[in-house]
Amino acid sequence: MQGVVVTMKKIILMLSLLMVNACGIANTTDISWRKLDPKHTILMTLPQGKVVIELAQQFSPKHVAQFEKLANEHFYDETTFYRVIDGFVAQAGPKDGSEKDKSVPLLKVEDHWITNKDFLFTKVQSNDLYAQQTGFSDGFAIAHSPKEQKAWLTHCPGTLAMARESGPDTATSHFYFVIGQAPRYLDRLMTVFGRVVYGMEHIQSVQRTSTIEGEFAVDSRDHTKIISMRLMSEVPKEQQIIIEVEDTSNENFAKRLTKTRNRENEFFYNKPPPVLDVCQISVRSRMVNK
Amino acid sequence: MQGVVVTMKKIILMLSLLMVNACGIANTTDISWRKLDPKHTILMTLPQGKVVIELAQQFSPKHVAQFEKLANEHFYDETTFYRVIDGFVAQAGPKDGSEKDKSVPLLKVEDHWITNKDFLFTKVQSNDLYAQQTGFSDGFAIAHSPKEQKAWLTHCPGTLAMARESGPDTATSHFYFVIGQAPRYLDRLMTVFGRVVYGMEHIQSVQRTSTIEGEFAVDSRDHTKIISMRLMSEVPKEQQIIIEVEDTSNENFAKRLTKTRNRENEFFYNKPPPVLDVCQISVRSRMVNK
Repeated sequence: MQGVVVTMKKIILMLSLLMVNACGIANTTDISWRKLDPKHTILMTLPQGKVVIELAQQFSPKHVAQFEKLANEHFYDETTFYRVIDGFVAQAGPKDGSEKDKSVPLLKVEDHWITNKDFLFTKVQSNDLYAQQTGFSDGFAIAHSPKEQKAWLTHCPGTLAMARESGPDTATSHFYFVIGQAPRYLDRLMTVFGRVVYGMEHIQSVQRTSTIEGEFAVDSRDHTKIISMRLMSEVPKEQQIIIEVEDTSNENFAKRLTKTRNRENEFFYNKPPPVLDVCQISVRSRMVNK
Repeated sequence: MQGVVVTMKKIILMLSLLMVNACGIANTTDISWRKLDPKHTILMTLPQGKVVIELAQQFSPKHVAQFEKLANEHFYDETTFYRVIDGFVAQAGPKDGSEKDKSVPLLKVEDHWITNKDFLFTKVQSNDLYAQQTGFSDGFAIAHSPKEQKAWLTHCPGTLAMARESGPDTATSHFYFVIGQAPRYLDRLMTVFGRVVYGMEHIQSVQRTSTIEGEFAVDSRDHTKIISMRLMSEVPKEQQIIIEVEDTSNENFAKRLTKTRNRENEFFYNKPPPVLDVCQISVRSRMVNK
C-alpha cells in the first residue's frame, strides 16, 4: 500500500517536471525577465476576471495603433464576444452595422515582414508542418521562410488577431483570440497583433455562442461582455497589473528549449521525436506588483 | 458607410466558412453519423455543466474497464481537479495517499497497438512533425508508423488519458484532460483512453490550480469538484445525453479533409501549405434526445 502512496506523489512530481518542460511553471531562478511597456499593454476586464495582453507594435504597428486608439476611446467597453467556437476562436466587436461599427477605418493587412540574411531570432524548429522555421522574437511565436526572406507572427493559443472580410485590407475593429489548437493555416492571412500574457483562463471560459445540432441555441443576451478595455498606462496605478515576461532572446530560454526537446528524464521510457511545436512552448510571465 | 456594413457581414460569413473547415459547425447534411454506445460513454457532471466522454475500449480495454468500474462505484464523485495548468492539462483524482486512492490496482500501460500491412484508417497527414502518419480511427485521432507497424492514440485537446508515475505500468485512477495545444510528446508514453464529445467548454473553465510568480496561490478549497461520474447506461433515461458523432470512416469525412486541406476560397489570398494538423480537425457531434 505504501508503494501506491509513493506512486501518487510521484505522479505529481513527474507532472511537475513535465510542467517545467511544457508549461514552465516551476523553477524560475535562471530566467531573464523583460518588463512590458504599459503604453503597449492592454488590460481587458471580463466578468470572469482580468486579462493582460502584450501588443506587437514592432510587428503590426498600424493594427496596434488603431486598437490602442479604440481602447483609449473606450470603444470596446460593453461590446460582446458574439462568435465563440470551442477549440477555435473567441471573436468580439461592436454590433454589426451599428454607427460605432461603421465609424472605424479599414486597415491594411500586416501579415509578414521582410527579413535579410542576418535576421536573428530564437529558433525552435526547422521544417515544422507549416513553415521552414519557427521560433520566438520578443516573446512572440513566429515563423520564418529564409527562402522567401519573410517572417510572420503565427497563430497559437492566446494569439490576438484582427478579423476581416475576404479582401486582405478589410479589418477594422473586430478581433479574435485563439482558444484552441493552433489554426496555423490562418498564418500570413490575418494580422496577428498581440498575445495574452495573463488571464488566458478567463478567455477560455467565455460563453460559447455556437451549439451542436440538437442543442438549444445560446441566447445572445448571455454572450460575454467586455467590461472594459484599456491601455495599462491609462489605468489608475493601484489597478494596474504589471507583468514581466520571459526574455526569449536570452540564452537560458534557448537552453530550456534544448532541454525540453531532449526529454532526458526516466519518465520518457519511449523517447519522443526530438521536435518542438512552437505553439506548445510557453513563455513565462510573472506579476511584479502584487 | 454601406461598404463597411457589408464588410462586417462578410466577416461573419467568412468566419462561418472558416468554421466549416476548422470546426465543422455549418452544413451537416452530408455527414454520416454513428451513435455512441451508452455502455462505453461517460456522463461527467461538473458545477459548470455536463460533459460527455467517448471511451476507447477498442484501443485501451484495460484502462477503460477500470475507469468504468470506478465510475460504477461512484469513486470519482466529489474528487477534485487538483492540478490544472492553463494550456496544458486538467488532472483529477482522489486525495493523494487516501484509502480510496490506495484501493485501486495498477494498470499495465496501453500506449500502442500492432498494425499489419492491411491496417485501414482515415489518413490526415504524412510526415507530421511527430509521426510518419496521422489520421482517424473510430473518431479518435491516431498516429501510425508503418515502419514499426505500430499505431497509437494521440494527445489532442479533449483527449482523456491516465496519469502515472515514472514507470510505464503505474497508472491507477488519476486522469487528465488535455486543455491546450496538443502535447504530442506524451504520445506512446501515456494511456489515452477517451475523448470529450460534448461540453469541452466546461472542462476549459475548470479552476486553474497553479499561479504565476507574484500572484496569490489558489486556495485548494476553490478547486473544481466532480459532482458525479457515471456510465451513460446507468443514468436515468430522462437525464441521459445521447450523442451521435461523425463517422470518420465515411467517405464524406475524407472528402471534407481534402476540401479543408485545399482551402479553395477567396478568403485565402495566400494559400496555406496543403497540410493538416490532426489535432486541429474537429469530429462533429450532435445531440439526438433534446
